Amino acid sequence: MDINFFEKKAKRGPQVILPKDVGLIATYSGLSSGKNVLDAGTGSGWLAIFLANLAYPGKVHTYEKRKEFYELAKKNIESSKLKNIKIHNDNIRKAKIKSRYDIITLDLQQPYDLIKKLDKNLKEGGVFAIYSPNIEQIKECVEVFKELGYETKTFENIVREWQVGFSSRPVHSGILHTGFLCFGYKKGAEKTKKK
Amino acid sequence: MDINFFEKKAKRGPQVILPKDVGLIATYSGLSSGKNVLDAGTGSGWLAIFLANLAYPGKVHTYEKRKEFYELAKKNIESSKLKNIKIHNDNIRKAKIKSRYDIITLDLQQPYDLIKKLDKNLKEGGVFAIYSPNIEQIKECVEVFKELGYETKTFENIVREWQVGFSSRPVHSGILHTGFLCFGYKKGAEKTKKK
Amino acid sequence: MDINFFEKKAKRGPQVILPKDVGLIATYSGLSSGKNVLDAGTGSGWLAIFLANLAYPGKVHTYEKRKEFYELAKKNIESSKLKNIKIHNDNIRKAKIKSRYDIITLDLQQPYDLIKKLDKNLKEGGVFAIYSPNIEQIKECVEVFKELGYETKTFENIVREWQVGFSSRPVHSGILHTGFLCFGYKKGAEKTKKK
Amino acid sequence: MDINFFEKKAKRGPQVILPKDVGLIATYSGLSSGKNVLDAGTGSGWLAIFLANLAYPGKVHTYEKRKEFYELAKKNIESSKLKNIKIHNDNIRKAKIKSRYDIITLDLQQPYDLIKKLDKNLKEGGVFAIYSPNIEQIKECVEVFKELGYETKTFENIVREWQVGFSSRPVHSGILHTGFLCFGYKKGAEKTKKK
Repeated sequence: MDINFFEKKAKRGPQVILPKDVGLIATYSGLSSGKNVLDAGTGSGWLAIFLANLAYPGKVHTYEKRKEFYELAKKNIESSKLKNIKIHNDNIRKAKIKSRYDIITLDLQQPYDLIKKLDKNLKEGGVFAIYSPNIEQIKECVEVFKELGYETKTFENIVREWQVGFSSRPVHSGILHTGFLCFGYKKGAEKTKKK
Repeated sequence: MDINFFEKKAKRGPQVILPKDVGLIATYSGLSSGKNVLDAGTGSGWLAIFLANLAYPGKVHTYEKRKEFYELAKKNIESSKLKNIKIHNDNIRKAKIKSRYDIITLDLQQPYDLIKKLDKNLKEGGVFAIYSPNIEQIKECVEVFKELGYETKTFENIVREWQVGFSSRPVHSGILHTGFLCFGYKKGAEKTKKK
Repeated sequence: MDINFFEKKAKRGPQVILPKDVGLIATYSGLSSGKNVLDAGTGSGWLAIFLANLAYPGKVHTYEKRKEFYELAKKNIESSKLKNIKIHNDNIRKAKIKSRYDIITLDLQQPYDLIKKLDKNLKEGGVFAIYSPNIEQIKECVEVFKELGYETKTFENIVREWQVGFSSRPVHSGILHTGFLCFGYKKGAEKTKKK
Repeated sequence: MDINFFEKKAKRGPQVILPKDVGLIATYSGLSSGKNVLDAGTGSGWLAIFLANLAYPGKVHTYEKRKEFYELAKKNIESSKLKNIKIHNDNIRKAKIKSRYDIITLDLQQPYDLIKKLDKNLKEGGVFAIYSPNIEQIKECVEVFKELGYETKTFENIVREWQVGFSSRPVHSGILHTGFLCFGYKKGAEKTKKK
């Protein structure tokens, strides 16, 4: 995938997740080549594409219920030329999901409701990564995680771009907050086959 | 690789790069499965291991001149069970490097000196990722990048862990600064074979 | 007051409020020479001393229920040589307060309970400044303020010290979070006599 | 002074200094009622007004060489109704300044040139507060301060406003950086007469 893919080729629709957050998701979820990921909602597909790019030959299954976002994400996935993403135009809350995954990423409203439903789809030693703009949803997730016996970690990150040269300083204005990232770690031995 | 690898198995020696910085390096360097990476200095080997984990089946070549760090990193690489890292106990400033890479990561003193030397080892469309604690080294890198016709982007990130529950707030104290990240983008079409 | 008062003379007891937070309280509460302030709980007395220092010849009345903190704060106030602070060894929740103030600062548990009680003690156009480590207490305060018809503003600040010289950068580690600051602005004309 | 003075009455001209920075200047310069301040350049006059408001009955002398900024600041100072500010339409680099001050604040280009000139105008135990958007000017100031035997402290602060309620979180975008604050502390006993 071209490093300029997101800037030049991907179409933007619903608010997209930023590299700074994708980077933390990748490192704190233990993402690595060969892992399988379940992702919802797809939105513009950026997170699914980023993850698939790094998980290859692992697979990413991503769910988007809204027809117009599904169509947009589908085009972005096609442009990415990645073959290891499968997008479903389906409501993940109603979908019958049978496979088990190494990582489940949730970027949608009321993620806490879904954690219980998808617990059976997360392998022992697997990780939920929840992305939410507000702290209230994170609190509800942490409660559910504790109930299920998961360990949790919550982060936020502030990334500033710098202008460097004659007058070096952080750029004056920009994004102060995108979302909180909450990771739920399921107990049990890591079952993913090592490379 | 086990998601707890770094906490449980890796041995710490020289100061290690943090997940927050590795995450930004991964996303802003266009790292993806199949890419080849040149890395120096190895230090404890954490960055090399993180990158190899995501770049597989791409390869990571990493250089460390100090014998004791080389020995430590070698053990960490062995524990990671990753087969796509090759570590060299050699001074990258003197080494004869012939291959061309998609990404070159530098986490050592005076990185600017090395950019000119390694320019020939970076493919068209490739990316340098420089990690430096102070702004002076970043300024020197940006100057060299401009001279060579690269585009650059410089970032720093502040990641705060939150305690979430009855009393939700960022943790009181911790790391305020690790390093600046400076990316140099080489002009030219991306030549990496697409998956 | 000596600029080194806090570093050299004041005794530290309970956790003290930092200059970065005092600075925001001063600017967002409209503190100025001649204003009268009600403050609780006193703690080590630092906030009261800072405020009195700037409000002079205005007065600061500060309440502390715990005997040992009261004794400590009393000593700090004496060392400051400021004559415009009156400290009360009393529980502000039970105290009969009749005066009306320009500014009321609360740095104690369950501040929201006190806002309703002290509303009658805040002049038209006056300001409550609430300092709380967690977001839950701030939420409760904002609800009470809305009920009472106040406008509110909530802030947090991250201050980093820099080392500047040969290698310039923010210091590696330190304080990531102290508290949130919530200001409640009471409607009505400012009645403080202008200088 | 009305707490809404800056929002409702003051006219904005050149870029104004923000409350977050004024707050740090107030606390780290040891500003208190009765201290005398020298300030340059005036700009819109906001910093001078803030300082005068807190230093009263101390005086603030402020210098602005550009006629149009001087006229604007003069109007702002008149609206503030503060009687303890004197504004000079003069270039501070050329002005003959004889008085000695407790605090000197500089918010202009090449502040380092002025530190040496104004050293004689700062009392023993006094403080320079330098506000500069870029790190290069701060480095030059720190060098001059060291040469003169001053101690220094440099800070930057990131203030985020929060929306608090049903969905609590920092506001999405805004100001990431205004300036660095560098304080130079002159040796010697504090000579300001205590209140």
